[in-house]
Amino acid sequence: MKNKILIILLGSLLSTQVAAMEWQALPDQAPAPKDNPTTPAKVELGKMLYMDPRFSSTGTVSCNSCHNVMEGGDDSRTTSMGVHGKTGGRNAPTVWNSAFHSVQFWDGRVNLLEDQAKGPVTNPIEMGMSDIEKAMDQVRAIPGYKIYFEKAFGINSMTVDNAAKAVAAFERTLITPDSAYDRFVKGDRKALTTQQQNGMNKFAEIGCIACHSGPAFNGPDKEFGDGFYAKFPTFTDNVYVQQYKLTSDKGRQDHTKKAEDAHMFRVPTLRNINDTAPYFHNGAVNSLPEAVRIMAATQLNMQLSKQDTNDIVAFLEALTGEYPQITMPRLPSANGKSINANPSL
Amino acid sequence: MKNKILIILLGSLLSTQVAAMEWQALPDQAPAPKDNPTTPAKVELGKMLYMDPRFSSTGTVSCNSCHNVMEGGDDSRTTSMGVHGKTGGRNAPTVWNSAFHSVQFWDGRVNLLEDQAKGPVTNPIEMGMSDIEKAMDQVRAIPGYKIYFEKAFGINSMTVDNAAKAVAAFERTLITPDSAYDRFVKGDRKALTTQQQNGMNKFAEIGCIACHSGPAFNGPDKEFGDGFYAKFPTFTDNVYVQQYKLTSDKGRQDHTKKAEDAHMFRVPTLRNINDTAPYFHNGAVNSLPEAVRIMAATQLNMQLSKQDTNDIVAFLEALTGEYPQITMPRLPSANGKSINANPSL
Repeated sequence: MKNKILIILLGSLLSTQVAAMEWQALPDQAPAPKDNPTTPAKVELGKMLYMDPRFSSTGTVSCNSCHNVMEGGDDSRTTSMGVHGKTGGRNAPTVWNSAFHSVQFWDGRVNLLEDQAKGPVTNPIEMGMSDIEKAMDQVRAIPGYKIYFEKAFGINSMTVDNAAKAVAAFERTLITPDSAYDRFVKGDRKALTTQQQNGMNKFAEIGCIACHSGPAFNGPDKEFGDGFYAKFPTFTDNVYVQQYKLTSDKGRQDHTKKAEDAHMFRVPTLRNINDTAPYFHNGAVNSLPEAVRIMAATQLNMQLSKQDTNDIVAFLEALTGEYPQITMPRLPSANGKSINANPSL
Repeated sequence: MKNKILIILLGSLLSTQVAAMEWQALPDQAPAPKDNPTTPAKVELGKMLYMDPRFSSTGTVSCNSCHNVMEGGDDSRTTSMGVHGKTGGRNAPTVWNSAFHSVQFWDGRVNLLEDQAKGPVTNPIEMGMSDIEKAMDQVRAIPGYKIYFEKAFGINSMTVDNAAKAVAAFERTLITPDSAYDRFVKGDRKALTTQQQNGMNKFAEIGCIACHSGPAFNGPDKEFGDGFYAKFPTFTDNVYVQQYKLTSDKGRQDHTKKAEDAHMFRVPTLRNINDTAPYFHNGAVNSLPEAVRIMAATQLNMQLSKQDTNDIVAFLEALTGEYPQITMPRLPSANGKSINANPSL
């Protein structure tokens, strides 16, 4: 009996310590690389480019098509649908708080949002342009864009690199502080319900926080380019692996070709996870409680009780932040001539 | 010589009279049917539904996909692209100032924006839902929508008709007064350049205004359901008809099956026409000056001089209004479960 009390005391002491050491609120600003400080002029231009479908091959797909800032920063699909109804192999990661990742894409194959922004433009199943310079030619063919590039980058600045810098600058404003969790961590002890606090402690105790640490719940603070990866699934002796085809995708190995990168994925943020179903790299799981059960089984070799699952889900719901209000940009006019008119498209 | 002066005087007298009689600024509010007065709660809900792609069959197509309010209220394509990359047969009309049309669609086949809003949802090449109630089931499956329907329409109000009413209410806010033309008509004589004023007079003198009259340049004021149509092309003895396949589409006849409706189309608004290329029901013409030349030839049996064409284009550019700033809605969350997750889509 004495021992039992001691264990309980120790347990609550440990979890208090975890709370004191580990829980961090989201910063009010996202980090930016030295050569691309975030400025209002870049953000304004970047927002236009982010929302503009006209430089995709069909004129129908923008960054926002798959990373919809009116939703959870994704598209609610299993895998995204690009030009001509083509679909890809992985679930669209949320753009919200993507600025807090030290590498981009599920496999971390690029270091910066600036690099990421260029990828989908020439991906044949996303925006489908044959060449990134051809996409930029489309932007250059819209007279109204010139002034916004000049405001952001000076004269003669309509380049792919600057377009990508502007999009990245806009994306660095897409952060969601002030969740119930953030208010709790900052001292408002009523911001979380008892169940959410129980879930928060459980999240730490069972080890979720070993990977999902830091202010964005995506791992420790790292320099750009230094990715934080985990093997998913780590434990395969459970019903979920086959049911949701969790080992079909080799993850980072497809990029690096190294055996040790098999099934390694960047640890995703958990912020706003209640708004980003379906889940995982393959989008195969369409239930947040099920996603929690799967993570416990595949990463911690643990079968969660219903109560613990519900408590953790309640805690995860407290990670939904305040989305900033975004005013729609006016996309510059092509002035009496469309850059997308083509009866064959 | 005397006669020539008299004619010039008479001409300028006539054009002054035309100006006094005919030129009208855009009203600050769009008309609404009696059973759907525009309210802030409906507009708020309607904006969400308008922007929400989740109740299309793929989860990728919203009203805004083809009628993009960040652009000219259209999609800059020849014909729109809906689900699975399918394309339709007619050019997407602009949503801006569509509230000033007495009938909707190119062929005027429905009377109200409320009716129009339902059409694309079940069109297999637009939003592609098999049944409008199934689309509404998708909306009903998103818990966060309920409160917005209640605010707009009261309890138990999540119906197709109310969704359409909300979208129509939002669309009635999509109007663009305060163009240079409007300021000119209201007394600011410096609002138009001399060339634009020349174009304005030419527009009246040669007869464009016979059809493109009224504050929205889409015909006389009419009751909802009483459409204003014109035969296009009226004159076929010109190079344009074959070049741009202007007689391939039977227009309103396809809907009414009446011989007299062959090639009859609703007279479209000319407001913001500089932002809505490509032009005409088939989107075949990708140049505003060319569109002006074609209209003169096919509707007025007239070959315009280069000067007159340029002047009229300059006037049409003065019809671009002030687009209201629109704040992006936050689309209600589906709470840890996507309504669009399906690996087969």
